Amino acid sequence: MQVVYTIKDVHHTLRKIRRVGKTIGLVPTMGALHAGHGSLIEAAVKGCDYVVVTIFVNPTQFGPGEDLEKYPRMLETDTAFCKDLGVDLVFAPSADEMYPEEQLTWVEVEKLTEGLCGANRPRHFRGVTTVCVKLFNIIQPDIAYFGQKDAQQAAVIRRMVSDLNLPLQICICPIVREADGLAMSSRNQYLSSDERKRALCLYKSLKVCREKVTDGQRAANTLIDTIRDIIGQDQGQIDYISIVDPETLEPLKTVTDRALVALAVHIGPTRLIDNILIDLKNSSKIV
Amino acid sequence: MQVVYTIKDVHHTLRKIRRVGKTIGLVPTMGALHAGHGSLIEAAVKGCDYVVVTIFVNPTQFGPGEDLEKYPRMLETDTAFCKDLGVDLVFAPSADEMYPEEQLTWVEVEKLTEGLCGANRPRHFRGVTTVCVKLFNIIQPDIAYFGQKDAQQAAVIRRMVSDLNLPLQICICPIVREADGLAMSSRNQYLSSDERKRALCLYKSLKVCREKVTDGQRAANTLIDTIRDIIGQDQGQIDYISIVDPETLEPLKTVTDRALVALAVHIGPTRLIDNILIDLKNSSKIV
Repeated sequence: MQVVYTIKDVHHTLRKIRRVGKTIGLVPTMGALHAGHGSLIEAAVKGCDYVVVTIFVNPTQFGPGEDLEKYPRMLETDTAFCKDLGVDLVFAPSADEMYPEEQLTWVEVEKLTEGLCGANRPRHFRGVTTVCVKLFNIIQPDIAYFGQKDAQQAAVIRRMVSDLNLPLQICICPIVREADGLAMSSRNQYLSSDERKRALCLYKSLKVCREKVTDGQRAANTLIDTIRDIIGQDQGQIDYISIVDPETLEPLKTVTDRALVALAVHIGPTRLIDNILIDLKNSSKIV
Repeated sequence: MQVVYTIKDVHHTLRKIRRVGKTIGLVPTMGALHAGHGSLIEAAVKGCDYVVVTIFVNPTQFGPGEDLEKYPRMLETDTAFCKDLGVDLVFAPSADEMYPEEQLTWVEVEKLTEGLCGANRPRHFRGVTTVCVKLFNIIQPDIAYFGQKDAQQAAVIRRMVSDLNLPLQICICPIVREADGLAMSSRNQYLSSDERKRALCLYKSLKVCREKVTDGQRAANTLIDTIRDIIGQDQGQIDYISIVDPETLEPLKTVTDRALVALAVHIGPTRLIDNILIDLKNSSKIV
């Protein structure tokens, strides 16, 4: 496995790979890799001839007062993790390498970025979409892998790829959870032992929501109230609880077919997100 | 020469071209081709193994009340023109092919799009940059060719390619003029015989500006006044006259090194643009 830090070195390495006709898989990450990232890498190793993992804590997707400075950075551990899983190339650029001059060009996705996480993180998705387009252009992968944990990001990226005719496929992989149900996240490291226990309320509330739907409840407001009550019991401070169309992200009043139940909750100072997908036509798909 | 109308057909044709390692040149146009486009095509034929011309009157770069409906469309004449010059592929998509659903994703370049033509055409450049990214992604050229006639567009596209790490080169070709100096433009077709004569004031004023600079005048305001007087004599209605840095497009008070003198003028109902580049370190380059 190779580790490179410059765009020039990426081009140099990948030119040879492309010339022999190998398919390239990309897993874009901000590092602090965990089993969630691991599942994306495994999917890439299975689906492509050559796998690139990018490790870049992208400053343009953090807002003022967010955790850019304290976001965990552990490049050596991360590269060892990648190597174990059969990654071929790690690209870990500096901020100066990715943004050598003032970034004047932004990729913006309207509507889909306005609700959910976008409502309280106004420039977050513009940073995500812009850095993804940059990474797609640098790596030129055949397939890029993202996690369903960031459900809104997944919908935004998919729409962007379609709207801009980007020449790659997007593969969205299911959420990976700890044994007790907490969704894997690099930000789980921030949790104290007490907060770690309280953080279980996110998935616990989503599981109860899923049961209510299975029992016939279809009214979004009622389902949201149920989730709110459970999270309140564990003193989580709710950013949002939303039931939306999984593609357009438009709020649903009634769950009739496919629905995304998504939430963001502060547990102490740490903001966590989680979600489930409901598919009434294929109830085994409530995951 | 092949003419195709769908993205699928472009992919099908270019897959074979790319597989044999040919370099691809792209000349994106809105049709109504003239000798200005011809010079771009000739540069592409000279510089690349395989040349694609796109002909697409892009609705998203026209504002309300602009000339989207009356913009000249003459596909047969245009394809014959391309064939004569040795083009390999013409891609002439419909608006539905390029925008099959509501376009939610936009590529925006800040600052460079705010002055000059951008001041009175607020969403114009967002339409241009977005359709260019789409065409770049569909065609995946090695080099794309644009004209210096649209000087602001050229600066915006160059910055966008750099900011987004787009994997292609941009080649900007000099303005092509009629024998009497009028810059070639598809919109010249709109001019009545009287307007056609009056339209000469654009280049006439720029030539006088160039002479004043050669004679030692460096103050942008004085140069702009000279241009304004000449255009006023021919009853042109001035949209803007600006002297700016050719890359950042920031207004200059004094011409010290490189400068772009750009203007937009209404001759009757037709809006025309023209510009000259000044390079004091290399005075032969005042073109």
